[in-house]
Amino acid sequence: MKLNIAVLPGDGIGPEIISVALDVTKAICDKFKHNLSFEYGICGADAIDKVGNPYPDETHELCMRSDAVLFGAVGHPRFDNDPSAKVRPEQGLLAMRKKLGLYANIRPVVTFETLIHKSPLRADLVKGADFMCIRELTGGLYFGRPQGRSEDGNVAYDTCVYSRDEVVRIVTLAYEYAMKRRKKLTIVDKANVLATSRLWREVSKEIAPKFPEVETEFMFVDNAAMRMIQWPTSFDVIVTENMFGDILTDEGSVITGSMGLLPSASIGTYTSVFEPIHGSWPQAAGQNIANPLATVLSAAMMFEYAFNLKDEASLIRGAVDASMNANVRTADIQIDGEKSFSTSEVGNWIVDFI
Amino acid sequence: MKLNIAVLPGDGIGPEIISVALDVTKAICDKFKHNLSFEYGICGADAIDKVGNPYPDETHELCMRSDAVLFGAVGHPRFDNDPSAKVRPEQGLLAMRKKLGLYANIRPVVTFETLIHKSPLRADLVKGADFMCIRELTGGLYFGRPQGRSEDGNVAYDTCVYSRDEVVRIVTLAYEYAMKRRKKLTIVDKANVLATSRLWREVSKEIAPKFPEVETEFMFVDNAAMRMIQWPTSFDVIVTENMFGDILTDEGSVITGSMGLLPSASIGTYTSVFEPIHGSWPQAAGQNIANPLATVLSAAMMFEYAFNLKDEASLIRGAVDASMNANVRTADIQIDGEKSFSTSEVGNWIVDFI
Ligand SMILES: CC(C)[C@H](C(=O)O)[C@@H](O)C(=O)O
Ligand SMILES: CC(C)[C@H](C(=O)O)[C@@H](O)C(=O)O
Repeated sequence: MKLNIAVLPGDGIGPEIISVALDVTKAICDKFKHNLSFEYGICGADAIDKVGNPYPDETHELCMRSDAVLFGAVGHPRFDNDPSAKVRPEQGLLAMRKKLGLYANIRPVVTFETLIHKSPLRADLVKGADFMCIRELTGGLYFGRPQGRSEDGNVAYDTCVYSRDEVVRIVTLAYEYAMKRRKKLTIVDKANVLATSRLWREVSKEIAPKFPEVETEFMFVDNAAMRMIQWPTSFDVIVTENMFGDILTDEGSVITGSMGLLPSASIGTYTSVFEPIHGSWPQAAGQNIANPLATVLSAAMMFEYAFNLKDEASLIRGAVDASMNANVRTADIQIDGEKSFSTSEVGNWIVDFI
Repeated sequence: MKLNIAVLPGDGIGPEIISVALDVTKAICDKFKHNLSFEYGICGADAIDKVGNPYPDETHELCMRSDAVLFGAVGHPRFDNDPSAKVRPEQGLLAMRKKLGLYANIRPVVTFETLIHKSPLRADLVKGADFMCIRELTGGLYFGRPQGRSEDGNVAYDTCVYSRDEVVRIVTLAYEYAMKRRKKLTIVDKANVLATSRLWREVSKEIAPKFPEVETEFMFVDNAAMRMIQWPTSFDVIVTENMFGDILTDEGSVITGSMGLLPSASIGTYTSVFEPIHGSWPQAAGQNIANPLATVLSAAMMFEYAFNLKDEASLIRGAVDASMNANVRTADIQIDGEKSFSTSEVGNWIVDFI
């Protein structure tokens, strides 16, 4: 098979972790005799510095030509807490989502037995948690218009908009994922307050009968935020709108204590983007200490979702498990008393294993 | 002093817990020689049944005449997951907030040493957590207009609106509370995406210099949702807009494991409302098993905030602590192996103590 990939390392530790994920991708392509072609693009603060735009047109065209995008992370402290800066790395992220039509952000949340002690939750509660958050990524408050200020500057407004088609698309996708898993779908909204949420619920109730095997549960977002802490094992697939998803997926990402291991996929109309859920950790850039596993597991998601190559994805996941079992781990997840390995050492071990 | 109180028991366990809080209020007024006058009003599902309106005009007028409202809880399972029902108990809640101008919802989150094992978080993380969430309660997505559907029903929209004055009012209040506490204020927004959040940040930066002793921290809402689990002791006062506040205050309410002990105050233009943060727990209604402490502590907040009677508030809090130390507790917070007490037994113990 021919795999045509765009590679966007981004900022901070992005280049180092992407380099490992790309090595793993190459090793898999060698082994399974796939024809890999890839091309680098710039984005984020790096692209602001170079061309004044966090998501330049050339990068967009590159992504449009590709079957999948392997993405590192963007962000730099000099933009922190300055939401008024004219050009910001996040704008590149939002532009990319909109222009590539990345409507579904998918984040598996999985507990790793050997990392449970890193979880902020009690081990007995979080043990066995294994769910998937599906966040709508191109609608809602993020992109609704009008957005802005009254003429005198004294009133600000944002608009949350959803169309029936947008809801049908994401909720159907969520049901399909639920069918492949434990067949339970939790649809999170605020239908007791919001008109958009009432549309979500109406549409969901129309779709539900097409998936009679799936148990559907509606839950208000405030309740979901509590339940995720109190009873994380009660979830299988969660689907929600953009802003609620931003909050809940981040909440979900910390409960397992394995942030450095969590990958994500953003499914799009034109192509799909695969990236770790953690940030660009600028303080660690260039030090060869960042955990590459979330990015490697994002590459596994790429093989599975973008190319439907499940054996390849399984082998990557198996290699990651093996590296953990062999205690070849970066410092953030290493067991007390054991020696920590560098980013590239972990990468090389996994490549050798493959 | 003359205390003029409206009492709204509401649904489920509301009447039982309010009865205890009212007994405690009477005991305090006896002891400190205050002249208490109170009057009952109906609200919630109870009021829907009786007059078809969850917040009837008579109840509103009663609240407007009062200096403080002691509120139980509203909600009944027959309205659950049916956001399309024409009249719903929550609508009464929202109407009350808007008509009484209850712009600031205040929720202290405190860990109780003896209840730490009930927390879903690891004891070492949550120990000592003691912060206050201040949620804007009459603006944002909850009340912004337009809200509704396109003519063909295929597009739904909500509007998030904030005016400068609304932000000034709540952020100033938050700084005042921070001054009375550990002098740290975390302002939570999504200023990298929302125009309303950028107004919040702009206004906050204008107000901050008036409180030079307070350390101001800006935090994105997704980050705050993580931090509350990972590092709850890092917060002192948190202030945020209505929808973010709905999610974060509920998240905050479960981390201590003492939901049954958490009171709240909603500060208004005309009067203020004091209520436990837990719900109406309809399954337990009439069984004399509900924990009355959150409501009793809400009465303490009433003495402090509505009447500026701090000694009275302290005595109530001391009596609650004493009841816990004497293990006179309801089942939800009782230590394993100790006998549990009923709602009224706990109430009587506290009244006797006072
Ligand atoms: C950086 C920001 C705009 C972005 C978002 O809110 O979507 C981020 O928090 C995320 O979740 O990817
Ligand atoms: C019932 C609902 C409308 C309400 C809200 O969202 O404000 C509740 O969740 C709360 O927090 O008091």
